[in-house]
Amino acid sequence: MRIYDYKAFPNPARVRLALAEKGLQDGVEFINVDVPAGEHRKPEFLAINPSAMVPVLELEDGTILSECAAITDYLDHVSGEPTLTGLNAKERGVIHMLQRKVEDGLLDAVGNYFHMATTGLGPDIELYENKDYGNRRRDIALKTMAWIDAKLADSDYLAGDRLTVADITAFAGFGFADFAGIETPEEFGNIAAWKARMGARPSMAALA
Amino acid sequence: MRIYDYKAFPNPARVRLALAEKGLQDGVEFINVDVPAGEHRKPEFLAINPSAMVPVLELEDGTILSECAAITDYLDHVSGEPTLTGLNAKERGVIHMLQRKVEDGLLDAVGNYFHMATTGLGPDIELYENKDYGNRRRDIALKTMAWIDAKLADSDYLAGDRLTVADITAFAGFGFADFAGIETPEEFGNIAAWKARMGARPSMAALA
Repeated sequence: MRIYDYKAFPNPARVRLALAEKGLQDGVEFINVDVPAGEHRKPEFLAINPSAMVPVLELEDGTILSECAAITDYLDHVSGEPTLTGLNAKERGVIHMLQRKVEDGLLDAVGNYFHMATTGLGPDIELYENKDYGNRRRDIALKTMAWIDAKLADSDYLAGDRLTVADITAFAGFGFADFAGIETPEEFGNIAAWKARMGARPSMAALA
Repeated sequence: MRIYDYKAFPNPARVRLALAEKGLQDGVEFINVDVPAGEHRKPEFLAINPSAMVPVLELEDGTILSECAAITDYLDHVSGEPTLTGLNAKERGVIHMLQRKVEDGLLDAVGNYFHMATTGLGPDIELYENKDYGNRRRDIALKTMAWIDAKLADSDYLAGDRLTVADITAFAGFGFADFAGIETPEEFGNIAAWKARMGARPSMAALA
């Protein structure tokens, strides 16, 4: 397997964490796409992913997979039981739902704020500004944090007592929020405890 | 199973088509949520889905599933082989990727245009206007149509020779685009042929 990504960024972190949780990191070739320098918009990379986004997974047979939730779905099914996305129909449905709510309401919402309402990656990379929409999405991110905190009152992880892709997406989302200056309110004690649990997992070495 | 939805709308159509394709429509209780009258924002419905969106699937044991891709993932795994979402890891990855690209780039893009850049469902329902972002998303929808047309040059359906959730999402997206006044350019002949193939499927009776 070959992965095109930029290590420090939130979406690449999702795939690196999933690889580590599934024990698949050995033998993966990482190819650095210099996003801050605009390399993701060059024809060579657009031929791989017309959406101009990292990460991208390339399989041995040349199949290209983009979109993090799709890549992690693949990785979860290629090695061992699909613990990250669900062992049966009901688990699949619940985990997929939670992952999507966290992806849209936290990670992508923070991304919209960062790219549209702040200087983001700088004028050479940020081609579209919309402060009003960006700030609206910041508010959504804070609402989603409140919803996540309430969810974590009942269980160690978002979908129950084991880690799933919903937690991986959330962890990347909170990291991006810190970076973008959207602080997690201190009153969210369940999130703080969950961050400590996540931070203690061996898979975190993949982000070091 | 119980489904809360509003029949004429694009996201409900996705779940109704998946139910019909999987032969699961019998015995489903449909509960109408009058979205144009604002019923999706009332406390009774927000207790079911805090995202205030239809459709929602309620299982016999009370489990609530929202987010269309999660609901269709569940339905696909609860009856027969998971033909809609993929029979193996690679199919799962590819179909998930295509579904997500179509969902974000067509269906949700049209929705953003409709709700933010037009009068949408009227002033009582539309609480946020942002013409610039809505029109930007309209452009994305047109770009996605071009990408879909190119994809359909190689195969009868988006992921190959059988229908998957990617086609279901796309069909709902094109229906929404028609409704919102974003015409599919006539030059996209592959899309026209695909629409005819989709329209001839027995599952279309679910939308009648």
